[in-house]
Amino acid sequence: MEFSVEQIASFLHGEIVGDGSIKVNNLSKIDDGKPGTLSFLANSKYTNYVYETKASAVLVRRDFTPEQEVKTTLIKVDDPYACLALLLNMVDQATRPQKIGIEENAYIAESAIIGNETYVGAFSYIADNVQIEDGSKIYPQCYIGNNVKIGKNCIIYPGVKIYHNCVIGNNVIIHAGVVIGGDGFGFAPQNGEYVKIAQIGNVVIEDNVEIGSNTTIDRATMGSTIIRRGTKLDNLIQVAHNVEIGNNTVMAAQVGIAGSTKIGSQCMIGGQVGFAGHITIGDNVNIGAQAGIPNSVEANSNLLGSPGIPIKEFARQVVLTKRLPEMNATIKQLQKEVEQLKSMLSENEGK
Amino acid sequence: MEFSVEQIASFLHGEIVGDGSIKVNNLSKIDDGKPGTLSFLANSKYTNYVYETKASAVLVRRDFTPEQEVKTTLIKVDDPYACLALLLNMVDQATRPQKIGIEENAYIAESAIIGNETYVGAFSYIADNVQIEDGSKIYPQCYIGNNVKIGKNCIIYPGVKIYHNCVIGNNVIIHAGVVIGGDGFGFAPQNGEYVKIAQIGNVVIEDNVEIGSNTTIDRATMGSTIIRRGTKLDNLIQVAHNVEIGNNTVMAAQVGIAGSTKIGSQCMIGGQVGFAGHITIGDNVNIGAQAGIPNSVEANSNLLGSPGIPIKEFARQVVLTKRLPEMNATIKQLQKEVEQLKSMLSENEGK
Amino acid sequence: MEFSVEQIASFLHGEIVGDGSIKVNNLSKIDDGKPGTLSFLANSKYTNYVYETKASAVLVRRDFTPEQEVKTTLIKVDDPYACLALLLNMVDQATRPQKIGIEENAYIAESAIIGNETYVGAFSYIADNVQIEDGSKIYPQCYIGNNVKIGKNCIIYPGVKIYHNCVIGNNVIIHAGVVIGGDGFGFAPQNGEYVKIAQIGNVVIEDNVEIGSNTTIDRATMGSTIIRRGTKLDNLIQVAHNVEIGNNTVMAAQVGIAGSTKIGSQCMIGGQVGFAGHITIGDNVNIGAQAGIPNSVEANSNLLGSPGIPIKEFARQVVLTKRLPEMNATIKQLQKEVEQLKSMLSENEGK
Repeated sequence: MEFSVEQIASFLHGEIVGDGSIKVNNLSKIDDGKPGTLSFLANSKYTNYVYETKASAVLVRRDFTPEQEVKTTLIKVDDPYACLALLLNMVDQATRPQKIGIEENAYIAESAIIGNETYVGAFSYIADNVQIEDGSKIYPQCYIGNNVKIGKNCIIYPGVKIYHNCVIGNNVIIHAGVVIGGDGFGFAPQNGEYVKIAQIGNVVIEDNVEIGSNTTIDRATMGSTIIRRGTKLDNLIQVAHNVEIGNNTVMAAQVGIAGSTKIGSQCMIGGQVGFAGHITIGDNVNIGAQAGIPNSVEANSNLLGSPGIPIKEFARQVVLTKRLPEMNATIKQLQKEVEQLKSMLSENEGK
Repeated sequence: MEFSVEQIASFLHGEIVGDGSIKVNNLSKIDDGKPGTLSFLANSKYTNYVYETKASAVLVRRDFTPEQEVKTTLIKVDDPYACLALLLNMVDQATRPQKIGIEENAYIAESAIIGNETYVGAFSYIADNVQIEDGSKIYPQCYIGNNVKIGKNCIIYPGVKIYHNCVIGNNVIIHAGVVIGGDGFGFAPQNGEYVKIAQIGNVVIEDNVEIGSNTTIDRATMGSTIIRRGTKLDNLIQVAHNVEIGNNTVMAAQVGIAGSTKIGSQCMIGGQVGFAGHITIGDNVNIGAQAGIPNSVEANSNLLGSPGIPIKEFARQVVLTKRLPEMNATIKQLQKEVEQLKSMLSENEGK
Repeated sequence: MEFSVEQIASFLHGEIVGDGSIKVNNLSKIDDGKPGTLSFLANSKYTNYVYETKASAVLVRRDFTPEQEVKTTLIKVDDPYACLALLLNMVDQATRPQKIGIEENAYIAESAIIGNETYVGAFSYIADNVQIEDGSKIYPQCYIGNNVKIGKNCIIYPGVKIYHNCVIGNNVIIHAGVVIGGDGFGFAPQNGEYVKIAQIGNVVIEDNVEIGSNTTIDRATMGSTIIRRGTKLDNLIQVAHNVEIGNNTVMAAQVGIAGSTKIGSQCMIGGQVGFAGHITIGDNVNIGAQAGIPNSVEANSNLLGSPGIPIKEFARQVVLTKRLPEMNATIKQLQKEVEQLKSMLSENEGK
């Protein structure tokens, strides 16, 4: 797959400065540009790289004016980053496996209903009464339990396990090793032992959700654990039973959410954050990496630390905690001085 | 599966207040009750929901006396929560896949011994000399390595991987994606590189243990990594080589335990807690979420924080850390005042 | 597999003190020694166990002189720990499954190239244009995506998933459930929703790397996520897109590394540490468990805490934070005393 700069510029409605006949076959970052690749300048911080990059061509803004000699070919476009995203997507479509059909050695229960233009890879197990709608791809070695419903145009990567009765919407992407619908962690203490509370609910994943590798989402005790439309979960995240996450919330890797907690829409959650159970996080909340959230949080909050506090307060705490040795020394010095003052005063008194 | 309220009341030795002929087919939480479901009131905090719930029937305590009109049917029982647990279990038994037999496309070594009333799902791999006792279920896509022994009535969910020589007791539940018996993390530094120390031990899981999705338990260097009877591990937990965890200890998700650490019985460990290696945690220890435990801990301790300290002390630290800006201002004010006092005094002296 | 102490001593060039005809069939730790096993004394802290161990024989240093009666047989060698590592390796070689060949029920694309003396287990999926070199073992239920290249003498344990275009070097060990090459977590906000940025790069794992169970390593947006030669990653670690980790760096379980961060060579990273994205960590850096690293770190640093600070500074902070209640009381006491001094002084003034 090779394109000339002319072809790309024409496709992106761009303007060529330099040799338009040169060919590229991949994309690169401008600080890591290689001959034969097309790079891009989206952040002015990287402008210097335009003059030294080895990339064969670089996407720049229409108003870019070089301040020294440029050896690479420039393609001037309205929005280099948007153009890049478009090209990344094209390359990805052309290189990612695009299989259709049911591979030999897949197990498909007779009662399962599989739509058109779907793919079911070898060694995948499609259990009783599963419904998979048009255009969805199930890679090899997945387990789709009884009565699971998967919407249209989903991609389920290898080795995903979805327990019985869970519901997956449309355009959902689930990466390898994800487990959906494992039993919630519920036990009743009884004579010093723990008796399992059966978990009869399910997990509902709405449209346009993406879930990263090896993340686990437990089924509800009763009702549903819900991930709402457009939310993106990174790798190795733990979502406990009866949790609900709103729309278009983004969570970095290794976040843990304890049972029955509700998280709002449009939130941004950093890596390794932990949420206690049975709390409510409002919309538009930002929580920094490694924070611990023991209580409910109002909408539009920005928290950091464990326990989480407003980011500005946290920053001040960090500074003052660093100054503790100094504060401690000052207190001791003050004690001495006060002692001196006292003795001076009592001497004065005595006079 | 539909039951009349009369049938359920009779089964639970309950007393009906309202229409006993009404039918229910599922269970619900009282704040999320739907028509056709049976709900329950176990916690008096939720009493108000009894008057507004849409659930068709509600389990309440025998001594419950409504303070306003109740539209739903009540079933009065001795212990609503225990009755609920019983019903949850019945619904679960009726809806969870209950397969028996060896599915086509399972690989079973000739030397493996498989008991009666067992299930081995498609694409599972049962290696040489494996022993699986009566009533155990191995879901699809599991790997059971050489010489592994699995006791009676275990449930091994899809995609579990158990390396060679590990031993699983009776009534053990292992959720999807769990890895048992991977090599302990042992390396000897040698000329700036690391040489692998072979890990020849195994993992022993005793009776009645439950292990959550994608948790990893490493094999011992020599001897065994041991999880004792009745202990419950949540998802994404890391148990390193030669760790031992006592009886009936409960651990929330994403806990990490470094090598050779021993944890007692009846402990409760919050999510994302980390334990250093080669330490000993006593019995009945409670450790709050995200704590870091660098040293051994005495029995009956309650710790929080990183490094972990007694919970009360931690709470006081949090309060005082918040007050640092104020303390800092007070110290500065004191410095000024002491300076003033000194200069006043020296003036006095001078008089 | 049973050996006499004489055979072992001869193999290790050791000197026997006691009965050389006694037989052993396994290795044990000296504080957990069982009859029929060979133990070792590498750390003088454990010397007392030599006199009471039930192990049939114990490896000791040549200069070891008992201070009381020894009941077990001693084998005196130059370096007991090195001898142990050698024996562990021998036992491991003898007991770990050593299969060769392609098992029935493995899926191998016609275009895949599989070297000599390799193993491909049942239910593994080897996609188009995969190349697996001599001596590598792919256990059951692995997924090796299009164009993946695996070098010589690798061990890929059951259920590993490697997405298309990734490259694995020689002598690499990857434990069960690892996911390599899942999409990096990249989204562009657009009208309150997130649009996926396609991830067209790959993952490169160099020679002699070992990766623990259920760890996830995401593919680069463009270019490569790289784990360099000799680095060892423990279980449940998250490596985001475009991360680079240097040579011979060791990371304990549950570490998380955000996108584009570069980590040096010869670093030691404790469990549950988190790294922010787009930062650079120098060589020979040690970071203690649970630390949070928001900014770049110079070579040879030793950090602890969140945010991470030099270990000594952290230790002092911990001590002083514990003393906060005392400091607070002292400040209040000083306030009182200064008030008293002031009023005494103003009385004096008044005289």
